[in-house]
Amino acid sequence: MPAELVEVEGHIIDSLILAKILDLIVGAGADYHMVDVRIGRTNTDPSKVRLEVRADDEGDLVALLEELQVHGANLVGELDAVLEPCTDDGVLPAGFYATTNLPTWVRLGGRWYPVENPEMDCALVVTTVPAPVVRTVPMHRVIAGERVVTGREGVRVDAPERPHGATPFEFMASEVSSEKPKSLLVAEVAGRLRANRQRGRRLLVVCGPAVIHTGAGPDLARLVRAGWVDVLFAGNGFAAHDLEANVLGTSLGVSVDAGTPTEGGHSNHLRVINEIRRWGSIEAAVRGGYVTDGVMYECVQRGVPFVLGGSVRDDGPLPDVRTDVVAAVDEMRQHVAGVGVALMLASTLHAVATGNILPAGVETYCVDINQAVVTKLADRGSRQALGIVTDVGLFVRDLAARLDPS
Amino acid sequence: MPAELVEVEGHIIDSLILAKILDLIVGAGADYHMVDVRIGRTNTDPSKVRLEVRADDEGDLVALLEELQVHGANLVGELDAVLEPCTDDGVLPAGFYATTNLPTWVRLGGRWYPVENPEMDCALVVTTVPAPVVRTVPMHRVIAGERVVTGREGVRVDAPERPHGATPFEFMASEVSSEKPKSLLVAEVAGRLRANRQRGRRLLVVCGPAVIHTGAGPDLARLVRAGWVDVLFAGNGFAAHDLEANVLGTSLGVSVDAGTPTEGGHSNHLRVINEIRRWGSIEAAVRGGYVTDGVMYECVQRGVPFVLGGSVRDDGPLPDVRTDVVAAVDEMRQHVAGVGVALMLASTLHAVATGNILPAGVETYCVDINQAVVTKLADRGSRQALGIVTDVGLFVRDLAARLDPS
Amino acid sequence: MPAELVEVEGHIIDSLILAKILDLIVGAGADYHMVDVRIGRTNTDPSKVRLEVRADDEGDLVALLEELQVHGANLVGELDAVLEPCTDDGVLPAGFYATTNLPTWVRLGGRWYPVENPEMDCALVVTTVPAPVVRTVPMHRVIAGERVVTGREGVRVDAPERPHGATPFEFMASEVSSEKPKSLLVAEVAGRLRANRQRGRRLLVVCGPAVIHTGAGPDLARLVRAGWVDVLFAGNGFAAHDLEANVLGTSLGVSVDAGTPTEGGHSNHLRVINEIRRWGSIEAAVRGGYVTDGVMYECVQRGVPFVLGGSVRDDGPLPDVRTDVVAAVDEMRQHVAGVGVALMLASTLHAVATGNILPAGVETYCVDINQAVVTKLADRGSRQALGIVTDVGLFVRDLAARLDPS
Amino acid sequence: MPAELVEVEGHIIDSLILAKILDLIVGAGADYHMVDVRIGRTNTDPSKVRLEVRADDEGDLVALLEELQVHGANLVGELDAVLEPCTDDGVLPAGFYATTNLPTWVRLGGRWYPVENPEMDCALVVTTVPAPVVRTVPMHRVIAGERVVTGREGVRVDAPERPHGATPFEFMASEVSSEKPKSLLVAEVAGRLRANRQRGRRLLVVCGPAVIHTGAGPDLARLVRAGWVDVLFAGNGFAAHDLEANVLGTSLGVSVDAGTPTEGGHSNHLRVINEIRRWGSIEAAVRGGYVTDGVMYECVQRGVPFVLGGSVRDDGPLPDVRTDVVAAVDEMRQHVAGVGVALMLASTLHAVATGNILPAGVETYCVDINQAVVTKLADRGSRQALGIVTDVGLFVRDLAARLDPS
Repeated sequence: MPAELVEVEGHIIDSLILAKILDLIVGAGADYHMVDVRIGRTNTDPSKVRLEVRADDEGDLVALLEELQVHGANLVGELDAVLEPCTDDGVLPAGFYATTNLPTWVRLGGRWYPVENPEMDCALVVTTVPAPVVRTVPMHRVIAGERVVTGREGVRVDAPERPHGATPFEFMASEVSSEKPKSLLVAEVAGRLRANRQRGRRLLVVCGPAVIHTGAGPDLARLVRAGWVDVLFAGNGFAAHDLEANVLGTSLGVSVDAGTPTEGGHSNHLRVINEIRRWGSIEAAVRGGYVTDGVMYECVQRGVPFVLGGSVRDDGPLPDVRTDVVAAVDEMRQHVAGVGVALMLASTLHAVATGNILPAGVETYCVDINQAVVTKLADRGSRQALGIVTDVGLFVRDLAARLDPS
Repeated sequence: MPAELVEVEGHIIDSLILAKILDLIVGAGADYHMVDVRIGRTNTDPSKVRLEVRADDEGDLVALLEELQVHGANLVGELDAVLEPCTDDGVLPAGFYATTNLPTWVRLGGRWYPVENPEMDCALVVTTVPAPVVRTVPMHRVIAGERVVTGREGVRVDAPERPHGATPFEFMASEVSSEKPKSLLVAEVAGRLRANRQRGRRLLVVCGPAVIHTGAGPDLARLVRAGWVDVLFAGNGFAAHDLEANVLGTSLGVSVDAGTPTEGGHSNHLRVINEIRRWGSIEAAVRGGYVTDGVMYECVQRGVPFVLGGSVRDDGPLPDVRTDVVAAVDEMRQHVAGVGVALMLASTLHAVATGNILPAGVETYCVDINQAVVTKLADRGSRQALGIVTDVGLFVRDLAARLDPS
Repeated sequence: MPAELVEVEGHIIDSLILAKILDLIVGAGADYHMVDVRIGRTNTDPSKVRLEVRADDEGDLVALLEELQVHGANLVGELDAVLEPCTDDGVLPAGFYATTNLPTWVRLGGRWYPVENPEMDCALVVTTVPAPVVRTVPMHRVIAGERVVTGREGVRVDAPERPHGATPFEFMASEVSSEKPKSLLVAEVAGRLRANRQRGRRLLVVCGPAVIHTGAGPDLARLVRAGWVDVLFAGNGFAAHDLEANVLGTSLGVSVDAGTPTEGGHSNHLRVINEIRRWGSIEAAVRGGYVTDGVMYECVQRGVPFVLGGSVRDDGPLPDVRTDVVAAVDEMRQHVAGVGVALMLASTLHAVATGNILPAGVETYCVDINQAVVTKLADRGSRQALGIVTDVGLFVRDLAARLDPS
Repeated sequence: MPAELVEVEGHIIDSLILAKILDLIVGAGADYHMVDVRIGRTNTDPSKVRLEVRADDEGDLVALLEELQVHGANLVGELDAVLEPCTDDGVLPAGFYATTNLPTWVRLGGRWYPVENPEMDCALVVTTVPAPVVRTVPMHRVIAGERVVTGREGVRVDAPERPHGATPFEFMASEVSSEKPKSLLVAEVAGRLRANRQRGRRLLVVCGPAVIHTGAGPDLARLVRAGWVDVLFAGNGFAAHDLEANVLGTSLGVSVDAGTPTEGGHSNHLRVINEIRRWGSIEAAVRGGYVTDGVMYECVQRGVPFVLGGSVRDDGPLPDVRTDVVAAVDEMRQHVAGVGVALMLASTLHAVATGNILPAGVETYCVDINQAVVTKLADRGSRQALGIVTDVGLFVRDLAARLDPS
């Protein structure tokens, strides 16, 4: 197994650098062994760590070492930088060293020279007459014949620092991004739900009304029918729109082919709520044949427990809604035991409420199209939550197709 | 064909009420005929319009009339309101009249009485002793025996007004919402693209790098291969990441099964750009076998013209990028003739640039996960653009599956 | 008063064109008189309107007419277009006609010629040999000597159309933008609040916890103290964080100069809620000297009624919170009479709940940094709401400085 | 100086726990000394750190220790938990221990007992008959007489773990929030700009057009006039709208009192661009008296260098715009030396371009109302950037008032 020794120095604990480096190594499927660790005793002492990094093949190791240097981890070694001339204007040698924006040093003739103008994503051009000078040069400005640093030997960077002392600003971490490959994320979530079931743990789903508005109702119903959902938390709006879409979809002849809730009808949800109130409960309305399809229907048919917590914006509300919010949460608490995964779908209010009562060990996926909603859950203390910024309608559709392909 | 006469009065032109009413009628698949039209001659004169509304069946007509009244269109007629008693506490008669938040009047014994406390989504409870009084009451507070207005006769509402005179505020219209049934929208766009092709018009696709980051590259490549795309506008980032995902996906053995761009590798795009610069152009790199897959590859193979406009944030850039932005747009202009549909995918800069040069008649769909981006295009003058707030990765995947099901 | 006759033709009602035109006229402080109105009787008939437009001075009228033509309103007249030669490459004559992206016609020698390639923000260049041709040309491409249309005579555009028939898409209107001059909006809201008070109407303020988190607590407290607020709706979080900031700001010696809530202290709000529960109510805690500052303190001192509606995410909750949401809204209803303006500050849940119970005539301003929240209120039926996308902390600070300058 | 010994154990490096703990200590103005450090040598070995924490007074230390325990840092000690009875239903003893959602242990009679149902923000209720049991109980459910854990002795929590191995998800860190006290942030930025000037370093400002649209133009002009800005990067849009607001503000008599750009006038910017093209440059137009106010005017008058980089969406463009984007960035590079602080105001394109060329040591503040824009800069490699999600109009206004109070 190919291995290399790297070292990193500075305020690498509190600046998160060491954590990031270990993360990159493990994330790349590689391995590390700490050879030497000196942690600064106080806030002002620097730390220094020397690591042996091992990867499965040389190519992976090279790619990984390059990534590590972005964060200040340098190869341990005392070799000079390798220089190669450019053969064409505006084109670099294939193995060119790609710069970071950190203070950088290049070893030439056994001595370390600073790079004059650090800039990321450039090449390092070396001139030696009258004295050695190393400059960053963007790709389009190199000239045939100029000598460029290639490979990873003989280049060191200083680890990035962040300002010391108390600050009202926090580190800008952008880990919740909408620019991720989404079908891979859906596949990953599907795998986690399968693993959760194999471990004998339960799946809790928390839903907002947008699940229905975006057309994902039938897909979620299919997941309930196929036995994937063990308990469901939601509010009056989710349940009312689910019932409305299904009751009026059938009785008024709205096209089932379109797979969408009935458009318009500002009072449709009120009429359905009113009829369910007449039946006395959602279960009674299902048993009595008034409701014949949808998420709530499947919950009743499969015996999946649900808690509908009330809110001040509720119309009606449905007879099953716990209008006393303290009692609602107390009831939610009774369903939390044994939950291994919580899936929060386009819900802010009920997702935060659920996050409040879940132990830290529950894997939590928070799916919403609005990045602010996704970060709010973590702000409120549910630090184990993983955010997926995407369209909940397309997400649930894809998830159902993966978990219940029939 | 069942029909009813409705009328609406007030500042119905400038408050957009008449437009909304006609929109609702046509949107419901119904029909109208203007029986009487009196448009106010000045800013202060009210207008009055009487319409005959026709629908295919009675149920649709009833639902539509209810919708119209939310906007101030009242049934023409001189019948009293029909009252029905509640049989249970907290449950309304099935046909109850659902209120709007507009000033409302109820006809009892031939006389119109105002509703005391207008509130939306309530029932109208009538008491007659000592004198007739009509109040809004929320569903949960009605008491068995109370008499409630049902049906649509004998109820009038005043049309909503908006404040007159100049104002720095604008009407709050929320037509670009993420809470729409998404798979229906994808199906609709697919249908528009098919119709566009049948009319012999061309499809222009404008792409941002998030198309690649969200994993939609292979799906878009499939659409190009299947002949759906006639011209492509993008920037250096889109093309570089498309090439990077494909070149390094092949050469470094990254799992093609995952269908995702290579993670990490902060310099990967630089290395690929550098090699394409060595080839001299994307076309040369494709012909020479360096690039074997992806969106740009398919464009070259299918002879689909593309314009890559430069920007100040470009690395490299690729040799095909027009670094002079004025020349870039001049070149884009040469490809606009015959375009019937423009699809803007997760692009702000190039979408606005394209919107600038398209005639108003080109159907334009702007897909982005960020609502602010979607509205920006309309702000910049491309008022024909229709916004779809969704995840571009899942959108393109679904669109490709519909247009090229093989 | 200078005046001109314009006309517009097409589906100008349902495509919102006429409404937009009237809006522009009134918004510019100008005036109109409808000279001739022919409204299409059915969905397929076009309409045609001829308007006399009057403005205070010629400059304003010219600017307004230019604006109107963007929406398809053309000057009535039978004059040829005026052509002027360019004197320099890349520079247009000062009075050049700036194009829209609509189909456009230019009158030359008494005949109307179509513009070959409609594009917005260009000039119209006319060549006459061998036959008259009119093309759009971007500013940078005109050549000295080319003849360009200037002024507004002899140019007509077709009114924009939107697709007929039912569609799942809606018009993309972007009226809620964050790109507005904000201090002007604050001044305007301040003026409306003053006018509301002069009319003897009450101000309702609805608050989310971000009012406190963004540091606006002391500013809102100042508005309460100065008598501007007549009733306040909020939830447990807003009140708890207001009390926490003030109680612990005093007792633990946190810098009052910073004007900010205490950082950290994940259990601080719990401890304060617990002590208020011991006192029995917020009022008791104020009377007993436990709470000495802040929004809730000022409400108690000034006798401003408040309703705290419960939600499932509440910690504690405070003893004043109505945990039964149906009872909470019933109590809110009792405070709605006489309200002329509602100010929704960084609240989704309570803003929607309040929107549900307000009559349409109440002026409603919804302030939030998140555009999606601002549009949600209108989606939920509160169409009278005006959205202001801004930072609530800086907004309230500026508003307080204007309304209570002392 | 009061001090306590705490320890934390687990995967505390790669789970960011140790970094977070050190951050909290320093952020609270306290101090630490590492007494014992054992770092796991490999990915699977746990680490263990023992720290002495010192604060200025006992109250601060208690608050800090409570905060640290949320992250798994426990007091070192072998004392039993202190129990206190509740005196009222629903009210806890004042010093109650507030729970986290981590696995928790309580020491009773010399033995550690696990908490049965971990839940955050609850109390720990202990019953001892028949055997000791510790449960979390929410505040509202405790009953008078129940014994509750108080203080910080005798409670331990397990440090949170995050899943090992490669994952497509990343940690959900929500450090860029719009819920921060904004006027404090403005004050902090003002302080940093003062410190930067005292160190003899330059301030670079990067502007998007929203600076002008939101009414901040005059405030930014004032900062330039007062000598705060050393170099300015922007695009055609920013400069054009700044010039338009000022030129037409003067010549057409638009109210200067309103302090806002002229509304409407879709071709106003084109006309101003055209006239500046006639002058040949912005400087010539200023010297010739055509431009008499605004940001660009002040830059010319004060000799502040500016670079206007072109983009494909530009109208005109202004003669000063570098239409070749590669040349534009090369020119930007020449102004970067000596820059100590970069202020990115409502700009995405130019902010990313500037981030690309700045060394890591430049303090960078990115101000935008859109959280996605703020995180994009960090995504693109400018990890030193600090994000401020706020309204740029109100931010610049407040900043100018602080830096140039005259």
